[in-house]
Amino acid sequence: MKKHNFSAGPSILPRVAVENAAKAVLDLNGIGLSVLEISHRTKDFEEVLDEAVALFKELLHIPEGYSVLFLGGGASMQFCMVPFNLLEKKAGYINTGVWAKKAMKEAKLFGEVETVASSEDRNFSYIPKGYAIPSDLDYLHITTNNTIFGTEYKTDIDSPVTLVADMSSDILSRPVDVSKYGLIYGGAQKNLGPAGVTFVIVRDDILGKVSRAIPSMLDYRTHVAGGSMFNTPPVFPIYVVRETLRWLKSIGGVPAVQKLNEEKAAILYDEIDRNPMFVGTAQREDRSLMNVCFVYSDEYKDMDTAEFVNFAKERGMVGIKGHRLVGGFRASIYNAMPKESVQALVDCMREFEKQYAK
Amino acid sequence: MKKHNFSAGPSILPRVAVENAAKAVLDLNGIGLSVLEISHRTKDFEEVLDEAVALFKELLHIPEGYSVLFLGGGASMQFCMVPFNLLEKKAGYINTGVWAKKAMKEAKLFGEVETVASSEDRNFSYIPKGYAIPSDLDYLHITTNNTIFGTEYKTDIDSPVTLVADMSSDILSRPVDVSKYGLIYGGAQKNLGPAGVTFVIVRDDILGKVSRAIPSMLDYRTHVAGGSMFNTPPVFPIYVVRETLRWLKSIGGVPAVQKLNEEKAAILYDEIDRNPMFVGTAQREDRSLMNVCFVYSDEYKDMDTAEFVNFAKERGMVGIKGHRLVGGFRASIYNAMPKESVQALVDCMREFEKQYAK
Repeated sequence: MKKHNFSAGPSILPRVAVENAAKAVLDLNGIGLSVLEISHRTKDFEEVLDEAVALFKELLHIPEGYSVLFLGGGASMQFCMVPFNLLEKKAGYINTGVWAKKAMKEAKLFGEVETVASSEDRNFSYIPKGYAIPSDLDYLHITTNNTIFGTEYKTDIDSPVTLVADMSSDILSRPVDVSKYGLIYGGAQKNLGPAGVTFVIVRDDILGKVSRAIPSMLDYRTHVAGGSMFNTPPVFPIYVVRETLRWLKSIGGVPAVQKLNEEKAAILYDEIDRNPMFVGTAQREDRSLMNVCFVYSDEYKDMDTAEFVNFAKERGMVGIKGHRLVGGFRASIYNAMPKESVQALVDCMREFEKQYAK
Repeated sequence: MKKHNFSAGPSILPRVAVENAAKAVLDLNGIGLSVLEISHRTKDFEEVLDEAVALFKELLHIPEGYSVLFLGGGASMQFCMVPFNLLEKKAGYINTGVWAKKAMKEAKLFGEVETVASSEDRNFSYIPKGYAIPSDLDYLHITTNNTIFGTEYKTDIDSPVTLVADMSSDILSRPVDVSKYGLIYGGAQKNLGPAGVTFVIVRDDILGKVSRAIPSMLDYRTHVAGGSMFNTPPVFPIYVVRETLRWLKSIGGVPAVQKLNEEKAAILYDEIDRNPMFVGTAQREDRSLMNVCFVYSDEYKDMDTAEFVNFAKERGMVGIKGHRLVGGFRASIYNAMPKESVQALVDCMREFEKQYAK
């Protein structure tokens, strides 16, 4: 049975990237060696890394003065690297959920942390708006897409202080004005590649301003200077990132995928709004185009979550169960998710309605 | 032409591991999804991680009371994580070369660092012996195999203080009495798997003794508690580690591979000692079984390094050029290197002798 992969991450990748990755595992470029076995100092890998950086810059229109890094360790490592490098006295955080809170927890080890705005009062079902950003912050940190709660910033905010964004789950899903940000980071395992590599886009001139000593591996300047090759980088994950970026370019880049993402999300949210058995959990204007969260409607709230999860599973839907903090269901429909899979889920919801609606 | 991969790292992997990895990239266990696309919270991956940990414990006879972790970030990250977690006042380091020095540099940010012994006086061509280990150290750090200089500890040393070892390049190549160590770490990309994952073997009771606050991702206790799943682990690199460990078990485990490693190294060192054109750089009793370093003998020292490198390259030898700090040539013959490739290199050295010896 065809599988429809709605996992929140690691998650679906473009099929062509997966197939090219498998080929490279057996033999990279016909050189007689696996991509898993080559030195990162070979021309073969340096070309991969250089192209990945160049494509990232091209697709996201990253201006001069920014470096693109591919590091190991996961986005969670960035939760401490950001304050290690940027927090001298006080940082501001917008608290939009679990991942924002994790980032705040790490920052508190390095200085004062001010919660500039929060949506915790309504279980993070919206993106805070209308708050003032203090001008004495070293930086303001936002999480642009909240996988667990299904909320997303739809536009780039204006900030009087350095803006730092965790874009783990919506990078390259819509155009971003990178010049409004000092630093953007994220794990690759949603829109960019497999688990095991983390991207960082950093404006070089914000670095080197804090007074503390920073261990080499945690200092962004180390990796800027080394071109992500200070130590052995995660070679294969970077290879898959390059393949994914090639695919994104081939389908028309970020504007094209944004249009596709809007269409996919509309198909699914329209069904959620129509189907009497389901209701969305996020405030409408903040609904994520990446993670669509929904629960049973009030009338059906006594039904077991497992009922629909299993119903969907029997029809090939994978990863539909919502996070325990929201309950219900979550369909992650990242860049690589085809419209056909979203339609298959909608068909499944309609069939479920036919079978179970009172 | 058949390639013989003598790269220092990332380096050769067992062919069966490479082939199984390629299959899993296309479709993991026939589930209709790529190993690159599955959530790390699925049963499919949890089985992989659990088996990798279990095999590691079995193959290295790791005693009770130790945890095995698979982390992102590279062994270089361990250079700061070790002192972050273990250095309260003073640590001792044995300086056996570039990697030991890098580890010392990071430790100095956290406390006093005493060079307990060093082989820098003779360009790190030997392993220091006969030194006293001060009993007031928080730990003693050693680098068991030195890839650049081709030296290796052949036995586990006795230490009155917690012993910490970087075994990046000789883990699982010989039996180790883990009970003599408090912590063993290393990048996977020599004997264990591809780049992008780092193993840590830690005796649980040495943790939690320092007074400083440690960021979550840098605190070993986080990863012990989370079973390497505090954050998304490097899924695919861990998959390949599991395949490599399965292969190692299938050929008879560590004692069997040690015998093979000794045979391979003997074939190559014997040729170096016999061939009038070459001479080994490391002191005999400290010669590494993993990285065989040699240069032109005095009589031929005016020959260009590129001559033999290219001669070997034309015969399929990859990665033979020595590190610039030693010069000459380096053949890395890790666990997965077949004896036939070592013999091919020896044949190549003999052919070179026939052609160029005076």
